[in-house]
Amino acid sequence: MPECLVFRVPTRHPADVSGLEALIESGAVAAQEIVAVFGKTEGNGCVNDFTRPLAVMALEAALGARLGLPPASVGARVALVMSGGTEGGLSPHLLIVARREGPMAEGRALAVGTAFTDDFLPEEIGRMAQVRATAAAVGRAMAAAGLADAADVHFVQVKCPLLTSARIQEAASRGESVATHDTYASMGLSRGASALGIGLALGEVADAALDDAAIGTRTDLCSGRASASAGIELMRNEVIVLGNAPGWSGPLRIAHRVMRDGIDFSAIQGALADLGLPTGGQLPPEASARVVALLAKAEPTRDGLIRGQRHIMNDDSDINATRHARALVGGVAAAAIGRTDLFVSGGAEHQGPDGGGPVAVIARVGPQEQTRSA
Amino acid sequence: MPECLVFRVPTRHPADVSGLEALIESGAVAAQEIVAVFGKTEGNGCVNDFTRPLAVMALEAALGARLGLPPASVGARVALVMSGGTEGGLSPHLLIVARREGPMAEGRALAVGTAFTDDFLPEEIGRMAQVRATAAAVGRAMAAAGLADAADVHFVQVKCPLLTSARIQEAASRGESVATHDTYASMGLSRGASALGIGLALGEVADAALDDAAIGTRTDLCSGRASASAGIELMRNEVIVLGNAPGWSGPLRIAHRVMRDGIDFSAIQGALADLGLPTGGQLPPEASARVVALLAKAEPTRDGLIRGQRHIMNDDSDINATRHARALVGGVAAAAIGRTDLFVSGGAEHQGPDGGGPVAVIARVGPQEQTRSA
Amino acid sequence: MPECLVFRVPTRHPADVSGLEALIESGAVAAQEIVAVFGKTEGNGCVNDFTRPLAVMALEAALGARLGLPPASVGARVALVMSGGTEGGLSPHLLIVARREGPMAEGRALAVGTAFTDDFLPEEIGRMAQVRATAAAVGRAMAAAGLADAADVHFVQVKCPLLTSARIQEAASRGESVATHDTYASMGLSRGASALGIGLALGEVADAALDDAAIGTRTDLCSGRASASAGIELMRNEVIVLGNAPGWSGPLRIAHRVMRDGIDFSAIQGALADLGLPTGGQLPPEASARVVALLAKAEPTRDGLIRGQRHIMNDDSDINATRHARALVGGVAAAAIGRTDLFVSGGAEHQGPDGGGPVAVIARVGPQEQTRSA
Amino acid sequence: MPECLVFRVPTRHPADVSGLEALIESGAVAAQEIVAVFGKTEGNGCVNDFTRPLAVMALEAALGARLGLPPASVGARVALVMSGGTEGGLSPHLLIVARREGPMAEGRALAVGTAFTDDFLPEEIGRMAQVRATAAAVGRAMAAAGLADAADVHFVQVKCPLLTSARIQEAASRGESVATHDTYASMGLSRGASALGIGLALGEVADAALDDAAIGTRTDLCSGRASASAGIELMRNEVIVLGNAPGWSGPLRIAHRVMRDGIDFSAIQGALADLGLPTGGQLPPEASARVVALLAKAEPTRDGLIRGQRHIMNDDSDINATRHARALVGGVAAAAIGRTDLFVSGGAEHQGPDGGGPVAVIARVGPQEQTRSA
Repeated sequence: MPECLVFRVPTRHPADVSGLEALIESGAVAAQEIVAVFGKTEGNGCVNDFTRPLAVMALEAALGARLGLPPASVGARVALVMSGGTEGGLSPHLLIVARREGPMAEGRALAVGTAFTDDFLPEEIGRMAQVRATAAAVGRAMAAAGLADAADVHFVQVKCPLLTSARIQEAASRGESVATHDTYASMGLSRGASALGIGLALGEVADAALDDAAIGTRTDLCSGRASASAGIELMRNEVIVLGNAPGWSGPLRIAHRVMRDGIDFSAIQGALADLGLPTGGQLPPEASARVVALLAKAEPTRDGLIRGQRHIMNDDSDINATRHARALVGGVAAAAIGRTDLFVSGGAEHQGPDGGGPVAVIARVGPQEQTRSA
Repeated sequence: MPECLVFRVPTRHPADVSGLEALIESGAVAAQEIVAVFGKTEGNGCVNDFTRPLAVMALEAALGARLGLPPASVGARVALVMSGGTEGGLSPHLLIVARREGPMAEGRALAVGTAFTDDFLPEEIGRMAQVRATAAAVGRAMAAAGLADAADVHFVQVKCPLLTSARIQEAASRGESVATHDTYASMGLSRGASALGIGLALGEVADAALDDAAIGTRTDLCSGRASASAGIELMRNEVIVLGNAPGWSGPLRIAHRVMRDGIDFSAIQGALADLGLPTGGQLPPEASARVVALLAKAEPTRDGLIRGQRHIMNDDSDINATRHARALVGGVAAAAIGRTDLFVSGGAEHQGPDGGGPVAVIARVGPQEQTRSA
Repeated sequence: MPECLVFRVPTRHPADVSGLEALIESGAVAAQEIVAVFGKTEGNGCVNDFTRPLAVMALEAALGARLGLPPASVGARVALVMSGGTEGGLSPHLLIVARREGPMAEGRALAVGTAFTDDFLPEEIGRMAQVRATAAAVGRAMAAAGLADAADVHFVQVKCPLLTSARIQEAASRGESVATHDTYASMGLSRGASALGIGLALGEVADAALDDAAIGTRTDLCSGRASASAGIELMRNEVIVLGNAPGWSGPLRIAHRVMRDGIDFSAIQGALADLGLPTGGQLPPEASARVVALLAKAEPTRDGLIRGQRHIMNDDSDINATRHARALVGGVAAAAIGRTDLFVSGGAEHQGPDGGGPVAVIARVGPQEQTRSA
Repeated sequence: MPECLVFRVPTRHPADVSGLEALIESGAVAAQEIVAVFGKTEGNGCVNDFTRPLAVMALEAALGARLGLPPASVGARVALVMSGGTEGGLSPHLLIVARREGPMAEGRALAVGTAFTDDFLPEEIGRMAQVRATAAAVGRAMAAAGLADAADVHFVQVKCPLLTSARIQEAASRGESVATHDTYASMGLSRGASALGIGLALGEVADAALDDAAIGTRTDLCSGRASASAGIELMRNEVIVLGNAPGWSGPLRIAHRVMRDGIDFSAIQGALADLGLPTGGQLPPEASARVVALLAKAEPTRDGLIRGQRHIMNDDSDINATRHARALVGGVAAAAIGRTDLFVSGGAEHQGPDGGGPVAVIARVGPQEQTRSA
């Protein structure tokens, strides 16, 4: 019976794999068991954030050495999802997701499945080709996780590509036009297309409502469980599905809510309550220690307001709006959890409502909760 | 019997005084009653933040017109404390503090007093001359507020100057050296000297412990009620003391706590509890509406850690550390209050412990609390 | 016979009008003679650059006091064109443009004319309504300058508005859509529409080629004499036409060239040669002192290349592309002139070819050149 | 008889080694011949510029594969000097420096030598320990190049470390204090100590004048041939000496001048003239093609002035001063050379006079110049 394990290790810089290596050396996890690595790196999270490829290069070297693979082959086996931006107080860290044979158990437990699309052409990014390929990959990842019911899926992370000037030129040289010439904007379109693909796979978004023009504009179309990060270091979509599935064992469970805006503290507390954690205020240290990971999306509202009050994210030409949004949601989440190594990712296009986004919590549950169906 | 009134008005840009003017026109407050204006403006909060002088210029023009004074004379009568930086989700706004004759009442109520130092020379900034002049001004402001007991003082806001290249040159031309040649660092030294002056006046810091070398280095010396903002637009210190004093009337009370770090949600909830507000999670809308103002200080820890986890504020050469810190504390405070128009100010040198800072809440209390001594 | 005077005064900060006041007090110019003030201010030159309105507010107060006008009425009489951004080594300064009766002279001399459009609605910005209103205003400004022949016009400066979140919302509340929801992008569309209006007025662009879709996309349509700066502080276009006209006297002449890219040093040297200045290398001090003003436009190329080599302006999410471009052109121009107080303005949409832009030089010519027709 | 070869290859991103690999595959250079790689990468050039370690990691992997060495051993054989920051129009590129046996020739030709110090402890950075170790390494590198006479040395590049929060903590844990707690400031002290070490080795600076307090403050002490770049990716100093030495062959020569300020176009033209290149204006394409590399240092003046006019580099809290300085000098150098792939490096403490810095040009000389002693 499979068990899904999640380890959280701090990093001292984007290329720091010492925590991962110590974890493997301690015997807590074997390199062969690792199916995905989520990383929060300390770049700007925008177009020219090279902390993501740096982290990927370091992880590929470290995992390749232990798997007996050349670095370039690691990505075919392990999904490496780097999310740039640790604004405010967020702390750079890695989440190591592994799958191993565990003891037999009843009920449901945390389950994971991964899948990849093929590489996209620049002109496919932010368009229906990306939506449909993502939806198909989500289906494959769910099958891999034994998640037959979309209702059991609590979080779908996608790492997706972006457009650069060079990629736009390459497409133009073949006579193809791209979805946008603004490289920063391409990140939003890529995330949005990926999220709509997730919503399509999970039945949250109707196929008939979708076309190229809807991507990035129809904010009413969204997934409450999608999380997409765009990065310069890949050209395909990498999909990781997390849920509570029958047939899996172990003490970990996942819960999620949709934050209706960036300061929706109650949504986070709702997810904590689902996992049997106290919600009177900030988690006390012993409860905080049971939280293995918090994953959340952050974005500015389009109308420039949070609960009727103006924010300046969209008008700030010194700091990009997603950087402000990550800092805000990171503060709200740290207020709840009492810790700062939280996976808050920016740009929530079609991921929850405008200005809000999904939040998921993975926690160790007690013996009592383990026997209940989550 | 005096009453201290506090009004919160949003701004659409740094020079927007339409909210202030509407407040006066509505009759809610008379221009003659205004003793201080706190403003959160949307600049970078650092050396070249010209949103602060822009706001001051607009406020001086608006208030001067209504007071029958030339704009340049307004500052002698009204303390204008602009704090730059609305990172994360913080919302630009003004807090209008007024004093008027109110009904007779028993017990204590919110009280305000203001005082100014003389202009400093560049070489005095960040040194003992600034400490001592600030302490004397705090004493004068307390006397003006009828706050005889330092224990009744809950918040002391100081607006203080900074060094620019031109000011450093001017001092050098007279053969004087300044505390630092780094203009950004001068903001911290000026805030630190101001905070130590407040601590000296309130008995939190011993005179014997202080000298030039202690400013900016002896992080064990601090005030739990000091808040200092540095700005390019003035050369003196402007002091506003807030407390609960006998002999004042009205429904407003102030409470404070010291945040031990940037995610100390419990400290904020402690201040809310002192004011009779609920503390189970985020304030519900009706309770949030009773909060007139939250004032907090934010800063990065020097050791680069929050509760043992690394933050990147001090190593980020794209976004200054105080900008990260404001965004973080703004998120934590919004999680508690459910609103984003909060007066979070960056750079808490000698204002609370390293990485933490004072937080004060001003709220309308119910009839029951009004009869109690706060 | 009119004479056009141009004075260059440094500023110590955006609100510094001491240089202007000293100029007036010295008798060099009377407040009544001033028709325009160009200012380079030290903000980011992007959406939230509040150094521009700060400078305008200070200039309106200073000029209003001397003209006996309320500050708000100064703008109806004097065109105030603030351009944000002094990246690289550029030095903040003001160019004071005045018109007075001068001695009789033959030949042509520097001439100036100004005109304003009405305020635009948000939905008109970056569209044909702005193009046509600008073209009409250029015609009025030429008439005011006695510039009957478009070939005698060497530089047309326009200050134009931009969209903010609030303005977009205001239009939406009336059911109107705007040209873009990206506030930074709106600056480019507003500059582009203004430049096409200039090109239309000067006969450089054919009316039949223009429609809303051409604005910001048809880079083949451009004016070689247009310079447009967008700012948050106005809603109309302000037009200043500069040329060499018969019927004007004085020692000043203007020349221009089109820089084909950001490092087109030869174009600057061409303009210097037209004015009889030496072109062997950097101007020696005595020749540099004859240059009263250099005005140039800067922008990144769309294809990410300068003479075949990659630049990173378009992919940099920390520093906006126009900031890089101003720094570059400022360096190239300083290499030619030997001084850094140069009016380099960013964002050259439809102002010269893609990645290039017009450059104009105003210089004092010797007695010999004064008798020649420029 | 050795020959020093220099190849310039563009990069598409910091990890792009395709140009280097193509160069090797073309047979133009063998991996075994490469002694140093200079790289301009597109990060911020400040503390958290991870484009430098990313480039190093990619170069180590590429060169290691071709040298039959593990990546970690490449650095012991090839000096990898990455300099972050391509502000303005600067173009990211690599300079590949190789040494091979060439034909016999008379006179002098470009010569190269390299040497490394041991790793420094954090508390040694920016202090005399770094000065002295650097001076010794320069001596070893000169010997390796056969440069017996310091007058024949035209450029000494050093890559040096910086302090991070973690490194400062590590020193503190051993009871050691560091030269500064400001991580950005540590870059300047490390560069300054390195430059003084070069000056000491070349006889430009007297040993008696040096102590810890002089580093970063005695701007009168400087080397006219030193260039130092600080980076997070190493803890030792790497030294590359370039000069014209007898006993070397080939068509390359190096010349240098000291720019007295950031707009000293004449200094660049002086170096071009030394190499027989035309100096009437910008180099025409055929002359520009003879320039293999331009290496220059850039920094802001401390007094905030360039030739008496204010710059805003030191007061800008959004863009670090060295970023402005690189953009400026890059523009001035591009004006001279007509190309943007120039190695302009920021932070010129003790490298030339305050606000200026050394500039060196490596060019192919014609048959006539080849027979002359350079």
